[in-house]
Amino acid sequence: MRLIIVGGVAGGASAAARARRLAEDAEIVLFERGPDVSYANCGLPYHVGGVIPDRTKLLVVTPKLLRERFRLDVRTRSSVEKIDRAAKTVTVRDLATGREYAERYDKLILAPGAAPLRPDIPGLDLPNVFTLRTLGDTDRIKAAVDAGARRAVIVGGGFIGLELAENLVHRGIDTTVVERNPQILTPFDPEMTTPLAARLREKGVRLVLGDTTEGITPTADGLSVKLKSGESLPAELVVLGVGVRPENRLAVEAGLETGPRGGIRVDDRLRTSDPDIFAVGDAIETTDVVTGQRTQVPLAGPANRQGRIAADNACGRDSRYRGTQGTAIVGFFGVTGAMTGASEKTLRRLGTAYRKVYVHPAHHAGYYPGAEGMTLKVLLDPTSGKVLGAQGVGGAGVDKRIDVLAVAIQAGMTVFDLERIELCYAPQFGSAKDPVNMAGFVAAGLVRGDHPQADWEAVAAAADKPLLLDVRTPTEYAAGHVPDAVNVPVDELRSRLSEVPRDRPVVAYCQVGQRGYLATRILRHAGLDASNLGGGYKTYLLHRPPSPSD
Amino acid sequence: MRLIIVGGVAGGASAAARARRLAEDAEIVLFERGPDVSYANCGLPYHVGGVIPDRTKLLVVTPKLLRERFRLDVRTRSSVEKIDRAAKTVTVRDLATGREYAERYDKLILAPGAAPLRPDIPGLDLPNVFTLRTLGDTDRIKAAVDAGARRAVIVGGGFIGLELAENLVHRGIDTTVVERNPQILTPFDPEMTTPLAARLREKGVRLVLGDTTEGITPTADGLSVKLKSGESLPAELVVLGVGVRPENRLAVEAGLETGPRGGIRVDDRLRTSDPDIFAVGDAIETTDVVTGQRTQVPLAGPANRQGRIAADNACGRDSRYRGTQGTAIVGFFGVTGAMTGASEKTLRRLGTAYRKVYVHPAHHAGYYPGAEGMTLKVLLDPTSGKVLGAQGVGGAGVDKRIDVLAVAIQAGMTVFDLERIELCYAPQFGSAKDPVNMAGFVAAGLVRGDHPQADWEAVAAAADKPLLLDVRTPTEYAAGHVPDAVNVPVDELRSRLSEVPRDRPVVAYCQVGQRGYLATRILRHAGLDASNLGGGYKTYLLHRPPSPSD
Repeated sequence: MRLIIVGGVAGGASAAARARRLAEDAEIVLFERGPDVSYANCGLPYHVGGVIPDRTKLLVVTPKLLRERFRLDVRTRSSVEKIDRAAKTVTVRDLATGREYAERYDKLILAPGAAPLRPDIPGLDLPNVFTLRTLGDTDRIKAAVDAGARRAVIVGGGFIGLELAENLVHRGIDTTVVERNPQILTPFDPEMTTPLAARLREKGVRLVLGDTTEGITPTADGLSVKLKSGESLPAELVVLGVGVRPENRLAVEAGLETGPRGGIRVDDRLRTSDPDIFAVGDAIETTDVVTGQRTQVPLAGPANRQGRIAADNACGRDSRYRGTQGTAIVGFFGVTGAMTGASEKTLRRLGTAYRKVYVHPAHHAGYYPGAEGMTLKVLLDPTSGKVLGAQGVGGAGVDKRIDVLAVAIQAGMTVFDLERIELCYAPQFGSAKDPVNMAGFVAAGLVRGDHPQADWEAVAAAADKPLLLDVRTPTEYAAGHVPDAVNVPVDELRSRLSEVPRDRPVVAYCQVGQRGYLATRILRHAGLDASNLGGGYKTYLLHRPPSPSD
Repeated sequence: MRLIIVGGVAGGASAAARARRLAEDAEIVLFERGPDVSYANCGLPYHVGGVIPDRTKLLVVTPKLLRERFRLDVRTRSSVEKIDRAAKTVTVRDLATGREYAERYDKLILAPGAAPLRPDIPGLDLPNVFTLRTLGDTDRIKAAVDAGARRAVIVGGGFIGLELAENLVHRGIDTTVVERNPQILTPFDPEMTTPLAARLREKGVRLVLGDTTEGITPTADGLSVKLKSGESLPAELVVLGVGVRPENRLAVEAGLETGPRGGIRVDDRLRTSDPDIFAVGDAIETTDVVTGQRTQVPLAGPANRQGRIAADNACGRDSRYRGTQGTAIVGFFGVTGAMTGASEKTLRRLGTAYRKVYVHPAHHAGYYPGAEGMTLKVLLDPTSGKVLGAQGVGGAGVDKRIDVLAVAIQAGMTVFDLERIELCYAPQFGSAKDPVNMAGFVAAGLVRGDHPQADWEAVAAAADKPLLLDVRTPTEYAAGHVPDAVNVPVDELRSRLSEVPRDRPVVAYCQVGQRGYLATRILRHAGLDASNLGGGYKTYLLHRPPSPSD
């Protein structure tokens, strides 16, 4: 069996190693266009920032190791230019010599990855305008920083852009991020990005949201990034991080099926429309496990696992990919944002019925020193309570809760299951009622009808304004409250029920939702049309953050 | 509806708050024998150590708050002495006045907790011999430390004993732990405790394992703890932490059914043998979700959730408890041990078929600074691959992986699911192939037959010794290897196959199992009867640690 693999980073390298373990006899040829295989793509921004000072640390596996240990025929700086499906050959160009030659395959695995999107604006070819995708890109950005760049503009407020922003700030660089959407990190729901944006601003990163870059021009001392708003941002370094597109040229030219956004189409065995050709990683279209929609998720985890599965199938096994869930995480300046499954945005776009809950727990027992706060949002089917998605933002322990929820989604669990899952508890690790249990309690109360909740968006949009009842203490109320809210502390509510007007719906709220829930129960028992503001005042603040100039 | 709750700590307080939210009209009376309700049981050792200096932090909820917010009739220092099931009354003794009185109930929830076991040895009533269960116990131990105790003996190497040991060391106290079993933390499998015991010793805690305490006697300057081995340990402070027994007197005297180990027997609605009486928390017997056996698991998390469920049912709902999984965690001196589901010990005791895998990954990408090592052990059904249990030991991130595995067990997942779960990955949070995925890969390879593994216990016990083939580098081999192993590095194995004798089975091993797996594949392809030593040399070292005196 002769297996050819195109691309030697995450999916390709995984496929090659897996294939060797399954088929000691197979001839396995791995072509990689770049000089490196299996490098740590996700670590690149940290090399720029000096967090990972040693560049060789980014080379997870060397061609030498792949050759010696896995007896792979690894050819770097070798670009596969063409697939002849009838002849079952690929045409390879040796980038060092320019020589072109053909190689025969029995099975072919495509792992070409994705290329950075380049917006259609002038100035992208100027010196010190870069993308960040490869080790070479990293070297160039780092060189510009080392050479004394003082101001940087990052075009695109996505995962890599913000990780790079953190690292540039570490290097003392005045950094501006320009994002055309009104929020950073567009896979997240907007309100969940509020604490992340606030943290970036606290650390001196300027965020220009809802504005687009129209062009880059050279200036006497560097570059000028011109925005649609009319503003010009001076910089010595510009990095584009506006997303990626699948490297699908080879596949398209070979007549393999691709999706509307360019991803190579594969079945659940990761087979393309040609049964002898498999494709994995950032280049493919896959199925979203929650929505069932086709999606493109350029993430290292799925790419690695897909590589194994494609190798299984190429070696004659029957191995299925279950689709991608979009579990993703980003951290900078000590804050973390993580998500899994469908976002509220996506559910709304698809017209899927959903409800949502927010909890704002500490990451471990509050009485043990060092507890850090987090906000957890869980999206659920309003009837069955099935968990559809989750997002978390905060400090330590966000990753853990999103991982737990990722497994819950994978298992098809409901919020009633979340009430019951039994997680580790000791005061330095969690709480007897873990944040995930708490989210389960709140969501299960919602589905059961015990706990009517009002989402802030609905309250803000209501034609007939409900009465907003702040059930926190007068001190909390005085420190900030929702406009027009009246204050009756929950502990006095039973004795002051007559003060609450009965002529319109009441939306109670407290800081995080717990006292608001009890208040809602008390009010409803007294015959009022009451609900609890989901996630309380803290969730309100995510939607209506104090302006950055406050 | 008149609901009486006996016990106001974890399960009792949860039940009371839940009942109020469900039934605003109910009369709810909460009796607590001690002076405090809802205190942070799990935080007590940390108050002794000064990690939680402020004692009031341990009082999670006060009787005042329960009265005002939840309109509960909270009566502390009130001991429920008797249940008259026919009359549906309890007899209460007011511990302040000695007065006894009866209270009527419609539904009764018992949450009496557990009492520290007191071994049958002389000297337990001497001054400065304590148990650690209540805030009062904490005060007494802390007072002894504050008064200048220099040497402590902790009888029992369980969770609380070791947490206390850490805290006593923080206070500068020379601490010895005496444990009658040959390992600390008996719920764990012995090899998994090796790094935890090593860490305790590193920090100066003396561990006396496999020895029992025969008595405590007063000496001129303190106490002497006499061991079965003949040794006497001088101390100014002795703390007993040998486990707990259910506080079942009330239940037994009322004729409620109890199990062989004393736990109050309940159905899945947490109803006792009397349908109007429910019981929750450390006092009950519950069902192990993995083994289906009856078990007693005195942990705060289950107690809290049981409280909610009992309240649901007492208030007329139908709410089911699914059993307990035994998810538990302990951390001290920067190491963590965590477990969920069945242990190997338990499976062996029950005669359940199982296999096990070990992985030794870093808690996040190795190229990102600060990666800490861990060992993860996963127990699985050898045919279906169903996950039966998991244990983890190491530094950061152990809690996360055990939580993920806890959900997997709850969902009935197999190791094939573990291969595929999609967890958060960015270099500071995890790896593209998360430790849980890695464990899934190894275990799935075992079940599929791709990856024959030999457990160290079997190798050590084999009548006909297999050839032990160390496939690491000569440097690694020279730094320490399994006795009698011969060294052929994996990268040379294909060319040196003729050196490997074919007359007996070969057990290959590397550091953690990955190279050993490839070596096994190469050897088997060459027709040898090869397997991989599960978890490699690192797992061997867990079974055969260098002796403390080395």
